[in-house]
Amino acid sequence: MRRLGIILNGATGRIGTGQHLARALVPLRDEGLTLASGERVAIDPVLTGRDAGRLQRTAQRFGIERWSTDLDACLENGEDTVFFDCAATGVRHANVKRALEAGKHVFCDKPLGTTYAEASALAQLAERLDRRNGVVMANLWLPGLRKLRALVDSGFFGRVLSIRGEHGYWIFDGHARPAQRPAWNYRREDGGGIVLDMMCHWHYMLESLFGRLARVTCAARTFVPDRLDEKATPYDATAEDAAFVLCELESGAMAQVCLSWCVRVYRDDLMVMQVDGTHGSAVVGVFDCYTQHRDQTPVLLWNAEDRPDVDHRAAWLPVPDAGTTGNAFRTQWALFLRHVLEDAPFPWDFAMAARGLEVVERCYSASGAHSWETLSAP
Amino acid sequence: MRRLGIILNGATGRIGTGQHLARALVPLRDEGLTLASGERVAIDPVLTGRDAGRLQRTAQRFGIERWSTDLDACLENGEDTVFFDCAATGVRHANVKRALEAGKHVFCDKPLGTTYAEASALAQLAERLDRRNGVVMANLWLPGLRKLRALVDSGFFGRVLSIRGEHGYWIFDGHARPAQRPAWNYRREDGGGIVLDMMCHWHYMLESLFGRLARVTCAARTFVPDRLDEKATPYDATAEDAAFVLCELESGAMAQVCLSWCVRVYRDDLMVMQVDGTHGSAVVGVFDCYTQHRDQTPVLLWNAEDRPDVDHRAAWLPVPDAGTTGNAFRTQWALFLRHVLEDAPFPWDFAMAARGLEVVERCYSASGAHSWETLSAP
Amino acid sequence: MRRLGIILNGATGRIGTGQHLARALVPLRDEGLTLASGERVAIDPVLTGRDAGRLQRTAQRFGIERWSTDLDACLENGEDTVFFDCAATGVRHANVKRALEAGKHVFCDKPLGTTYAEASALAQLAERLDRRNGVVMANLWLPGLRKLRALVDSGFFGRVLSIRGEHGYWIFDGHARPAQRPAWNYRREDGGGIVLDMMCHWHYMLESLFGRLARVTCAARTFVPDRLDEKATPYDATAEDAAFVLCELESGAMAQVCLSWCVRVYRDDLMVMQVDGTHGSAVVGVFDCYTQHRDQTPVLLWNAEDRPDVDHRAAWLPVPDAGTTGNAFRTQWALFLRHVLEDAPFPWDFAMAARGLEVVERCYSASGAHSWETLSAP
Amino acid sequence: MRRLGIILNGATGRIGTGQHLARALVPLRDEGLTLASGERVAIDPVLTGRDAGRLQRTAQRFGIERWSTDLDACLENGEDTVFFDCAATGVRHANVKRALEAGKHVFCDKPLGTTYAEASALAQLAERLDRRNGVVMANLWLPGLRKLRALVDSGFFGRVLSIRGEHGYWIFDGHARPAQRPAWNYRREDGGGIVLDMMCHWHYMLESLFGRLARVTCAARTFVPDRLDEKATPYDATAEDAAFVLCELESGAMAQVCLSWCVRVYRDDLMVMQVDGTHGSAVVGVFDCYTQHRDQTPVLLWNAEDRPDVDHRAAWLPVPDAGTTGNAFRTQWALFLRHVLEDAPFPWDFAMAARGLEVVERCYSASGAHSWETLSAP
Repeated sequence: MRRLGIILNGATGRIGTGQHLARALVPLRDEGLTLASGERVAIDPVLTGRDAGRLQRTAQRFGIERWSTDLDACLENGEDTVFFDCAATGVRHANVKRALEAGKHVFCDKPLGTTYAEASALAQLAERLDRRNGVVMANLWLPGLRKLRALVDSGFFGRVLSIRGEHGYWIFDGHARPAQRPAWNYRREDGGGIVLDMMCHWHYMLESLFGRLARVTCAARTFVPDRLDEKATPYDATAEDAAFVLCELESGAMAQVCLSWCVRVYRDDLMVMQVDGTHGSAVVGVFDCYTQHRDQTPVLLWNAEDRPDVDHRAAWLPVPDAGTTGNAFRTQWALFLRHVLEDAPFPWDFAMAARGLEVVERCYSASGAHSWETLSAP
Repeated sequence: MRRLGIILNGATGRIGTGQHLARALVPLRDEGLTLASGERVAIDPVLTGRDAGRLQRTAQRFGIERWSTDLDACLENGEDTVFFDCAATGVRHANVKRALEAGKHVFCDKPLGTTYAEASALAQLAERLDRRNGVVMANLWLPGLRKLRALVDSGFFGRVLSIRGEHGYWIFDGHARPAQRPAWNYRREDGGGIVLDMMCHWHYMLESLFGRLARVTCAARTFVPDRLDEKATPYDATAEDAAFVLCELESGAMAQVCLSWCVRVYRDDLMVMQVDGTHGSAVVGVFDCYTQHRDQTPVLLWNAEDRPDVDHRAAWLPVPDAGTTGNAFRTQWALFLRHVLEDAPFPWDFAMAARGLEVVERCYSASGAHSWETLSAP
Repeated sequence: MRRLGIILNGATGRIGTGQHLARALVPLRDEGLTLASGERVAIDPVLTGRDAGRLQRTAQRFGIERWSTDLDACLENGEDTVFFDCAATGVRHANVKRALEAGKHVFCDKPLGTTYAEASALAQLAERLDRRNGVVMANLWLPGLRKLRALVDSGFFGRVLSIRGEHGYWIFDGHARPAQRPAWNYRREDGGGIVLDMMCHWHYMLESLFGRLARVTCAARTFVPDRLDEKATPYDATAEDAAFVLCELESGAMAQVCLSWCVRVYRDDLMVMQVDGTHGSAVVGVFDCYTQHRDQTPVLLWNAEDRPDVDHRAAWLPVPDAGTTGNAFRTQWALFLRHVLEDAPFPWDFAMAARGLEVVERCYSASGAHSWETLSAP
Repeated sequence: MRRLGIILNGATGRIGTGQHLARALVPLRDEGLTLASGERVAIDPVLTGRDAGRLQRTAQRFGIERWSTDLDACLENGEDTVFFDCAATGVRHANVKRALEAGKHVFCDKPLGTTYAEASALAQLAERLDRRNGVVMANLWLPGLRKLRALVDSGFFGRVLSIRGEHGYWIFDGHARPAQRPAWNYRREDGGGIVLDMMCHWHYMLESLFGRLARVTCAARTFVPDRLDEKATPYDATAEDAAFVLCELESGAMAQVCLSWCVRVYRDDLMVMQVDGTHGSAVVGVFDCYTQHRDQTPVLLWNAEDRPDVDHRAAWLPVPDAGTTGNAFRTQWALFLRHVLEDAPFPWDFAMAARGLEVVERCYSASGAHSWETLSAP
């Protein structure tokens, strides 16, 4: 059985332990990874980080034998060929650069850096050094998005005309009720902002499913400037808590995205996307996906006189669940490892992640300048 | 009983007879209008137009004694002090100008002219001549919009943060099924286009309810370029059948409006608007209005692992119907006549209608130039 | 306005007056027929038959000015260019032959003759004389079938795999309750038999919608041999009251048709057809059509242990009604007259009707010989 | 308490452990079998097979004391008088033959062999050696089928005229979704094919309930030739995935059976059967059975003009559940053991099972030759 050594850097945080370790890598290690050839691979992780106590506790909890606070030493170990980073965003560029230069294949959490420039440089470096590279884009493996992907692949929509997305729900400001999200999310200086947080996701969802974006505009807003933090201390919200985005796609389709922590939810799910095409439409949430084919489309007429006794949503049918879909992080991890080990396709690379940061930066520019911004050509 | 003579010009068309006569003026005439003072007013209409046969038939149908093809003679009759126009849009400016210059108070159908310049000129003329003036803005008296108005007036929303509207449904292209709307709607050269048709309505709904707009951008699209007309003959759709609009309000709120004849309806109604404010939110359709107060707002958390067994829409409550609300056209007619007769407030005047055309024109400019357009200051 | 003279032979019977006159031709005459060119056509019928009293009464009822018992004289009138026959099936061949030889275009009720040979001869004669010809195939314009046609045309099914049809309901034998159908339907010697009656319809439905049939087998049965007629007199049922048919289509699809007056109805309608294709399925009745797209298809598993709480029919959506569809007979009449007057397409001709009789005859042969029968090639 | 020793051969597979052990024999052993005389019988099983590890684990799981890989030794043990086989079909004939020759009474899973010839030989051998014999025909004890049996026994149907059955649902081809059934089912060379799989069941259901079949025809089709297997590898489907069968019964009734993995389910259940008789009809599924008596039969009339507001299925009434019916396998096991021990009736013997294989083989012949095939006389 072949062995694969993986350096996991910064994996003792909430996302690192809760998702990457508990739900993705540890189950993969326990069951072993199977390649297309049938070959089985034994995963052998080493935890790296700065806090020895935390590393030890985490290693113990998951039965991981190796951990270290000496990242350089670990990178020098030629037996561990894959590097994964989910440490703080501020040091991602430096960490990933060191790993690439040490000859590692690199997988990391999003965002790939704090700027488009940083991320692009990493993408170029990885290409120059010919190292496998990828970034977590987990939304693509949510049950609802998998169903949408299947509809796109089957040609259900015909020509896609418009995509309208909403993400968000009411985040309390800390006065009457505690906020459901950390305070740094609302401070620009700490890396907060719903555009930076969410447009990365919407970028890869839109471009993976519907093709390249050509132009964007955005209106970012800080609707609730006064909030209380985790300790009920008032602070100034300096990052936007809502953004209204329009995107032109190269295909001619339009995407409208509303991101907001200042809306109340009157929809199927916390994130929804409606896709309308010439042959059919779908409304997709995190778990479910409802469809209406053109041949099932009701003939509607405007009538403001008589209240119609009609439930428009009853004219849609769910896409059935596709059996056991598995955790999104684990699915993408397995795909990345198979990309490293047997060259399986993996389009979710540094270049795509850098592109996401380009979209984020153009949204901020557009919002500041009241403009539409053209995205870079391929 | 006081008498009020009204010249009804061009009222033999579909909207003129179906709405203004059958549902508004004739019932008002039959029941009489009552002023705030308690005084009763007898309405005495005269139909004017170009087709004597049609005028005679329409007059007969509604028991109207007077009709004429000689508009000039009617305008000279000092006993008829109110002029109403719902003839073709192309001649509205000329008709209204003649009536104002003949000293009439003027009420007319939307749009007030074919351009912002035309409509502004009429607004200025009416102001200079000190004539009462108004334009039909019937959506404001739809049952759902009345409920929304009441919420705004009661301060239910606190500070309004965002308004998100959708209007439209799938209009068949005539191939598999006949289109539900006339072909001219899809031809720019015939006065078609969803922006011209619908942004007038959204303008007055937004500014009446939430205050002045400051800036707009728009992406207008012709998603279905090939359609069949009423006789199943193919034609080129030259007007946009969808538009994605963003508006900044002077208050700091944002409005996002999607107008489209190329979407399938997964919502409560053919037109819906969600308003989110610091104190509460509402989702309003043509007839109904659902609300969620900040104290009723669920504490939601992102969870992509476990399918939540929750119906988000069940956490909203309807605003009860406010008894019989009456036809929207009739309500606005009565308000206009009381404005003429006893100076009752009537903000839905030529200036506001001209402003609607300004918004429409700026939307087209923004869409063509990929820009945001600043609207005129008051 | 152009005039079209039509000889209506034998139209005083139940189908003739109830369908062809009352619902098709008389309304067409009253409203006039409009051609694609916009030209209007005045329809001028003459009733012919053997019973002068009936002809006079029928003419009077419908305001038809001309009637005659002298068919030969009528056929000699060069002003009447169209002949229609719905007299008894036994004399159809003779009537239609006379009309063709007199130079008329001919439309007639089904069946086109008592045998395939008779019908083929008429088809060849019409072709040789270059006369327009057609046979009533009214099921094609039933609301449900129109919806099915639209699904076929839009490619909804992908590759069609199987068609399963059922037609029939319990016809009482006259003992406990009177029969709902006339006694001659159950006597071979009087032209009865469910294969002869119904396979003509199924032939044109199958071949119009799904392409040519290649092979058939059939098991015809007389399940209830003793019946009481309209006067409660016992008689021997000599014609089959049920038939089980299998058809191979040239496309590779299979059709299974159950025709029976001895079944009780546990389905949507008296006639239903389920079509299954690679991309979607539909279940169509006389009025409605339910659909399930491949992306909406539930993942079903056999489980005989636990009763599943599932309503399989809830996973289907109706095809919306396509506005006013109009009477089926009138629709086909208008199509035939436009075929005569302006060469509009009309595939429902004598050749297709003769083919229907071929299928009927092969069904009887197959049933008698316990064989599969190959149909003639094009 | 009397002891009964049973050799269970090949019972460590999915059906063996999941059905025969877990749901049938182990509960029977735990509760003991009671004969008509009131005598109690202690069941003492021995597991035989080839994989010692599996046998041991299975024995342990169910608290079975005896297991062995030496079948010959077990067959020599005169204390164990009953032999049961659910090993692979390919070795069934050999296993059963050995057991019969060793003097055992034999019960086994279906099919009784790979060919009619093999199965017939076993039936003759069992008869010659005068050994009790039976084959699993579990569908007969499904809740719905028990209700149907009761209707047949009570004479509810009068003379049965027709039986129309459907079994199947859409099996995905593995592209958009994984298939719900194993790939070997679609490969003739691996024993696949819906006729072989399902016509055995339909044979015993039809002949047990309605008497002997006289003649059959069949059209077997492979509608989806390209499928992906459990590992998403493409393979050629060489076995039929659909079959359309017609059967003449000796009684004069007709049976029409549609078996298909290429249909979408618009019916009550995955398997349904409609039975129509002179006195009443029933529609039976796996669990439920709906009935309409002749005195409850609506008087239906064809009407293609006006949409009838009628729900045909509402005119049927369910047969109430008959208390706890128990697992189908357990029920048949108890019947077989009572047949061995006290000569209780047991018609589901080798002869009937061989007859099922005859029907299967004739269906394949008929499909290949476009013929009707006569079945052997008693």
